Amino acid sequence: MKSLIGKRGKKAGLPPESLVYVGEKKTEKIKINLINYNEINFEEKEIKRIDECQEYKGKALTWINVEGVHDVTIIEKLGKDFEIHPLILEDILNTDQRPKKEDFINNIFIVLKMLSLNKNNEIISEQVSMVVAPGYLITFQEGIEGDVFNPIRERIRNNKGAIRKLSVDYLVYSLLDAIIDKYFLIIEKIAEKIELIESEIIEKSFQKHLQDIHKIKQEAIFLRKSIWPLREVISSLERDDSLIFKETTRLYFRDLFDHTIHIIDNLESLREMLSAITEIYLSNLSNKLNETIRVLTIISTLFIPPTFIVGIYGMNFKYLPELEWKWGYPAVMIFIVLVSLSMFFYFKKKRWI
Amino acid sequence: MKSLIGKRGKKAGLPPESLVYVGEKKTEKIKINLINYNEINFEEKEIKRIDECQEYKGKALTWINVEGVHDVTIIEKLGKDFEIHPLILEDILNTDQRPKKEDFINNIFIVLKMLSLNKNNEIISEQVSMVVAPGYLITFQEGIEGDVFNPIRERIRNNKGAIRKLSVDYLVYSLLDAIIDKYFLIIEKIAEKIELIESEIIEKSFQKHLQDIHKIKQEAIFLRKSIWPLREVISSLERDDSLIFKETTRLYFRDLFDHTIHIIDNLESLREMLSAITEIYLSNLSNKLNETIRVLTIISTLFIPPTFIVGIYGMNFKYLPELEWKWGYPAVMIFIVLVSLSMFFYFKKKRWI
Amino acid sequence: MKSLIGKRGKKAGLPPESLVYVGEKKTEKIKINLINYNEINFEEKEIKRIDECQEYKGKALTWINVEGVHDVTIIEKLGKDFEIHPLILEDILNTDQRPKKEDFINNIFIVLKMLSLNKNNEIISEQVSMVVAPGYLITFQEGIEGDVFNPIRERIRNNKGAIRKLSVDYLVYSLLDAIIDKYFLIIEKIAEKIELIESEIIEKSFQKHLQDIHKIKQEAIFLRKSIWPLREVISSLERDDSLIFKETTRLYFRDLFDHTIHIIDNLESLREMLSAITEIYLSNLSNKLNETIRVLTIISTLFIPPTFIVGIYGMNFKYLPELEWKWGYPAVMIFIVLVSLSMFFYFKKKRWI
Amino acid sequence: MKSLIGKRGKKAGLPPESLVYVGEKKTEKIKINLINYNEINFEEKEIKRIDECQEYKGKALTWINVEGVHDVTIIEKLGKDFEIHPLILEDILNTDQRPKKEDFINNIFIVLKMLSLNKNNEIISEQVSMVVAPGYLITFQEGIEGDVFNPIRERIRNNKGAIRKLSVDYLVYSLLDAIIDKYFLIIEKIAEKIELIESEIIEKSFQKHLQDIHKIKQEAIFLRKSIWPLREVISSLERDDSLIFKETTRLYFRDLFDHTIHIIDNLESLREMLSAITEIYLSNLSNKLNETIRVLTIISTLFIPPTFIVGIYGMNFKYLPELEWKWGYPAVMIFIVLVSLSMFFYFKKKRWI
Amino acid sequence: MKSLIGKRGKKAGLPPESLVYVGEKKTEKIKINLINYNEINFEEKEIKRIDECQEYKGKALTWINVEGVHDVTIIEKLGKDFEIHPLILEDILNTDQRPKKEDFINNIFIVLKMLSLNKNNEIISEQVSMVVAPGYLITFQEGIEGDVFNPIRERIRNNKGAIRKLSVDYLVYSLLDAIIDKYFLIIEKIAEKIELIESEIIEKSFQKHLQDIHKIKQEAIFLRKSIWPLREVISSLERDDSLIFKETTRLYFRDLFDHTIHIIDNLESLREMLSAITEIYLSNLSNKLNETIRVLTIISTLFIPPTFIVGIYGMNFKYLPELEWKWGYPAVMIFIVLVSLSMFFYFKKKRWI
Repeated sequence: MKSLIGKRGKKAGLPPESLVYVGEKKTEKIKINLINYNEINFEEKEIKRIDECQEYKGKALTWINVEGVHDVTIIEKLGKDFEIHPLILEDILNTDQRPKKEDFINNIFIVLKMLSLNKNNEIISEQVSMVVAPGYLITFQEGIEGDVFNPIRERIRNNKGAIRKLSVDYLVYSLLDAIIDKYFLIIEKIAEKIELIESEIIEKSFQKHLQDIHKIKQEAIFLRKSIWPLREVISSLERDDSLIFKETTRLYFRDLFDHTIHIIDNLESLREMLSAITEIYLSNLSNKLNETIRVLTIISTLFIPPTFIVGIYGMNFKYLPELEWKWGYPAVMIFIVLVSLSMFFYFKKKRWI
Repeated sequence: MKSLIGKRGKKAGLPPESLVYVGEKKTEKIKINLINYNEINFEEKEIKRIDECQEYKGKALTWINVEGVHDVTIIEKLGKDFEIHPLILEDILNTDQRPKKEDFINNIFIVLKMLSLNKNNEIISEQVSMVVAPGYLITFQEGIEGDVFNPIRERIRNNKGAIRKLSVDYLVYSLLDAIIDKYFLIIEKIAEKIELIESEIIEKSFQKHLQDIHKIKQEAIFLRKSIWPLREVISSLERDDSLIFKETTRLYFRDLFDHTIHIIDNLESLREMLSAITEIYLSNLSNKLNETIRVLTIISTLFIPPTFIVGIYGMNFKYLPELEWKWGYPAVMIFIVLVSLSMFFYFKKKRWI
Repeated sequence: MKSLIGKRGKKAGLPPESLVYVGEKKTEKIKINLINYNEINFEEKEIKRIDECQEYKGKALTWINVEGVHDVTIIEKLGKDFEIHPLILEDILNTDQRPKKEDFINNIFIVLKMLSLNKNNEIISEQVSMVVAPGYLITFQEGIEGDVFNPIRERIRNNKGAIRKLSVDYLVYSLLDAIIDKYFLIIEKIAEKIELIESEIIEKSFQKHLQDIHKIKQEAIFLRKSIWPLREVISSLERDDSLIFKETTRLYFRDLFDHTIHIIDNLESLREMLSAITEIYLSNLSNKLNETIRVLTIISTLFIPPTFIVGIYGMNFKYLPELEWKWGYPAVMIFIVLVSLSMFFYFKKKRWI
Repeated sequence: MKSLIGKRGKKAGLPPESLVYVGEKKTEKIKINLINYNEINFEEKEIKRIDECQEYKGKALTWINVEGVHDVTIIEKLGKDFEIHPLILEDILNTDQRPKKEDFINNIFIVLKMLSLNKNNEIISEQVSMVVAPGYLITFQEGIEGDVFNPIRERIRNNKGAIRKLSVDYLVYSLLDAIIDKYFLIIEKIAEKIELIESEIIEKSFQKHLQDIHKIKQEAIFLRKSIWPLREVISSLERDDSLIFKETTRLYFRDLFDHTIHIIDNLESLREMLSAITEIYLSNLSNKLNETIRVLTIISTLFIPPTFIVGIYGMNFKYLPELEWKWGYPAVMIFIVLVSLSMFFYFKKKRWI
Repeated sequence: MKSLIGKRGKKAGLPPESLVYVGEKKTEKIKINLINYNEINFEEKEIKRIDECQEYKGKALTWINVEGVHDVTIIEKLGKDFEIHPLILEDILNTDQRPKKEDFINNIFIVLKMLSLNKNNEIISEQVSMVVAPGYLITFQEGIEGDVFNPIRERIRNNKGAIRKLSVDYLVYSLLDAIIDKYFLIIEKIAEKIELIESEIIEKSFQKHLQDIHKIKQEAIFLRKSIWPLREVISSLERDDSLIFKETTRLYFRDLFDHTIHIIDNLESLREMLSAITEIYLSNLSNKLNETIRVLTIISTLFIPPTFIVGIYGMNFKYLPELEWKWGYPAVMIFIVLVSLSMFFYFKKKRWI
């Protein structure tokens, strides 16, 4: 997981619309994939020169997917060709965006986080930006391995479901749905981690768990930052009455909104579980401290008085009558045992043992 | 109680409307029960083939109850026969829904959780989905033993109360009322558990209680997730001015809304009680630690100095005059007792004992 | 104080409007008191048969007060005579209601909690329901000893203040005002209890206080549940523009609303005081633990090294030169005193003593 | 500072509008000061008989200031002369009011708290009520020494600033401004106290500080109760479009509203500082405990094993070969030193020392 | 960082509009810089006499920047020349303002905090006030070294970007953007500090960290106070439909609003990280306490019983048979080792070691 707070500061001082890539480079080469389709035709193509995109303008529905956003010139060229506002381009290049949806005169801009898990079950976050306009959709990814958009491409290729019949808004919906469905998976994974720690922590408490809990807490903070703003984004898409988003697709976005609320609910439950677990961890710690101190007390209680008694008869007084008695030694030993036993039972009664 | 976070993730990657059963199979066979009634006529029937349902369409008021939702084909068939939107069918099959109410063009979809207690007083949750349309109601249950709908069936059969005279909205109300009444019972049960722990914890504090509290806390988190969204659901039903929900039934839904608020209030009180109890548990723990350490201190205080004194007279110095004294031994013993007593009373005064 | 969560569950499964008494029976006999008055006439009467009430219908302003609500038949008869909606009757019989105000076609229903203190300064809660209609008011009490309505009856009897000149809304206002004024008293009493504990806890901390704080915390939770919904109730009465509540009385209800807000403010202050007190209690506990452990450390520090030293000279080595020295014993004793003193001053310097 | 929860309960049971003084008597004699002014004329006068006030009615702008509100008859007389609603009079007499602004038919009623500091830097609170009507303003104070209104009187007398040129709303604004400016002072004083404690607590932690923090916490609770409702009061004055408050003065009230928000912000910062300080106090306590226990452990570790070793050679066995050795004693002593040193360095390595 | 609560109180008692400088003097000389530009012309000038400013009125776009606000006469003169309302002047002189935006009849007033870091990475805060009117902008700074406005001046001078082509609203936007971009840097710096402490604290816990955390907490409280109100300010600018702010610049302000929300989000994450860190710090402390006490217990457990046993054979009883045995000494030693070992393994099994 990348650091909670992004490195946006390096842009401070530059003119507001200056295009500078802010983020880590996550892929080497930029890959541009173009899909042009309607109910009947379908064409897919790897783009080498940006100019090629121009040809598809106005022809059916075009989806251009750009993987890797660190090359400012490509983004700038695309921006000019498709009349994308400089502020949008700036946001695409800055990979520390808060999820949001913004209306511009001739298109709509959506940015959100695509989350996935790496091999160590850690969250990887990638920014996905979408520029939606009547007739085309341009998506920008940072370009980490593993793409949640593939199933949708598959559906378009094979004309599965309603996707080929409907327009760009349904395509946007399908992509968002794929991204948000992934969130469920992430949350389930975290919930599993928590439940694992929980079941271990109930009996024993190790220092290690503390760090695990702390790590998950940070993941929860990160998720919160990524997911909470989604609520507004999707709700704004649902209420959108521009030319792009049609009445018929609204149902789907309402469903998506519902998913978002559900994810937020789950996230809140995660947080409550985490705080409940921290609490149990801390009281387990206290319990253990109590137990150890109880052992210490019992030992002191059982051995300190006897040690004192044997000390008495270790004194070298000339006139110490008990020392001369024949049964002195066994008598003292029995006395010590009696003293210890009576203390033991007193503690037992007091529930200290 | 099932896990707090559902297993919705297995749908990730599939097209949005693809029908896949998401949940544990809770019953073997699917049971479909159909009741058709108006003020005069009444007919009840176990449905074998879905086609049979079609015959009752438009005839008086039909209530179809489907127990078990893991057979996708049955749900799909019903969906086609009664013109149910694919998004509804998807939600019915996904048993990890957030309670909600959604308006579609020709029907209204309601989904919520029916809660009950098993033999161990643990909460069992079952999803109930309702498709309401003028003239018929289709309910879907996951199909756990024990049905809260039976009393309502009984009332329909025996024409008790107003139910046979009124239309489908009153039937919906009656079912929701039965489900929500059950919530009161659950909350009372949890409150009882809390009060039991509370009364025990006040005097003594056992490790066991910590786990009990933790368990109840999780139940409270789960209840919260199930009950909070209800507020919107019922309030939306109350304000509904579609053809299905009539002015006259509105009073009943207002009452139901009131119940929901009351349940949420109780839930919040539960949570406050739980946090108060955790606090008392933790300070009891601290108290106990204090007490044990006080005992340890007293023992050390009373025995360590005497042990030192007897150690002095255990030294083997050739010239140690006290050892020669006739009353040396008793004198030392009396001195030790005096030292111990004076320390004891000093502590008493300082309120350490 | 009764349990925080009511026993409403026993109604689960019954038809929504079935009349069942839910609560503890708090009085043996049901007492019905009728007052009929206008500016000139006044009549007060103990009602034996419900039918008698009918005669006063339409004659001036009638106030019927029913003490004891466990007899379902009486409530049912009254309900029929005065055209009270079954949902109202159900709520009257269910003594675990959340304070609320509901508008029905021909009357307004108000339910709230009347609180008082018993001899042990514990809160007793009683449900008061009011059915307000033009020309009459019916109030239902659970029937605990001690009635806050008596001063108002007195004012009506003696024609004190404006009450005889004004209509039913002013009567409702007067009753609510009497109930809410009682809340101030309760909150002051709890504040006094808290201040008492506070002043004691600052110096010393006893286990007992923990339970006291816990008890008050529960009272605060209970008060919150009773008082928070009042806000809406009174505000809704203020904004009411039915035939019953007139423009002129609005000022009074605004005043009442103000009182309610004030009570809620005070309640929040109570809660803050309680949490501040718990905090101080817990840190007092920690402080005490610290002090005890410091004593333990000092004792160990001062006596363990000397005990070791005297142990050395208790060894029986044949060749242990110091033992033969003439001034060996006093030298060792002086050495021990010096060691102890230097440790003592070191601790003093380190501020441990 | 007076008790957090007022003594309003003594009015319970009385008719709503009955005038009873609720509060402590803070001044002996009631002092009534009348100022009548416009841009040209100015007259100031100590009022002996209430009737004198009447003469100024309608003549320019009259400001009557009443110091001391415990004499019910005076308040009643004034109320009748100036047509003040009984509910206003009741609120003036009750010195435990929540800050509020209420519109009546012919005047506006404002009540708030004037805070000051006594010699011990403790907060003193005094209720100020204002009855504003076109042409006159009546203010009621409880009558504690030291008056924040004097600078305003001075400005009127000397015709400084705009006050003589403007009407009653500007006068109200000036008074409120004077009161609210005082709040800044109080908050700065508390902040200073907190910073003082903070700087002391960082190094050492004394029991005394706990009580100081607790005291400031209570002051913060009290301030919150006094200041929060101000927000609504001032905002309502700003939005007021009655005959009394004119468009031109609105700017001033907006400024006042801004001040109020600023004070609330500062108050919240105070509260956060307090909780941060409590936290640091508590962890300092824990740190200290840790340190003391570490000392205890080191002592035990360094001395208990040697004590055991010397105990061995204190045994009186007949056949204990080491005792006969010539270098037995120094060998044992060296062995003990070696054991202790190795333990010491082990602890050092483990960072326990 | 200056104190959290400003020193505004010294104005208490003065007439509301009296101009008094409230704040620390941060620069010696007041520096006034004037820039007058349009697309074609550009003029920059150091102002000596305020009157010079007058000449530029109405000529293209004028930006006057005043560095240092402690000279009341200068501010007053400027105020008169440019018809600035006295309330604005008062706010400019009072450097403890809450960020806000206020509309006046002929201009708009904006005040906010410019934050920067000094050499010790501590936050320095400076108040920036802006008076915006058609055709000119006057900015007031407190005058600390290092100016975030320089890059904008540079852009104007060199006619970079759109700034020379657009009007005063775009200039305001550019300045605000420069200030807000600086906030990202501050937050990143704090996040870095937190992460540093975090990584250190996970393994070891030092007293020092506690103070560091406390310091950062205060910075966070301070940032919150500075940044939260920004939300309203920028949102109000975005929605502004005065003559000054034009439709075309709205997009930019929406972007700025987005940045503000993003900063607030980050700030909240910071706060959560801080509380998570405090938690981990405190449990680390507890862990360490536990560990130390465990060591103490083990030592006592392993050595106290053996010490008792050797004490027995140090007794001087005449008849103590074991003392006479040939193998008594080795037998006792072996017995002691066995006792210690069995205790050791018992503890191992119990997981105390």
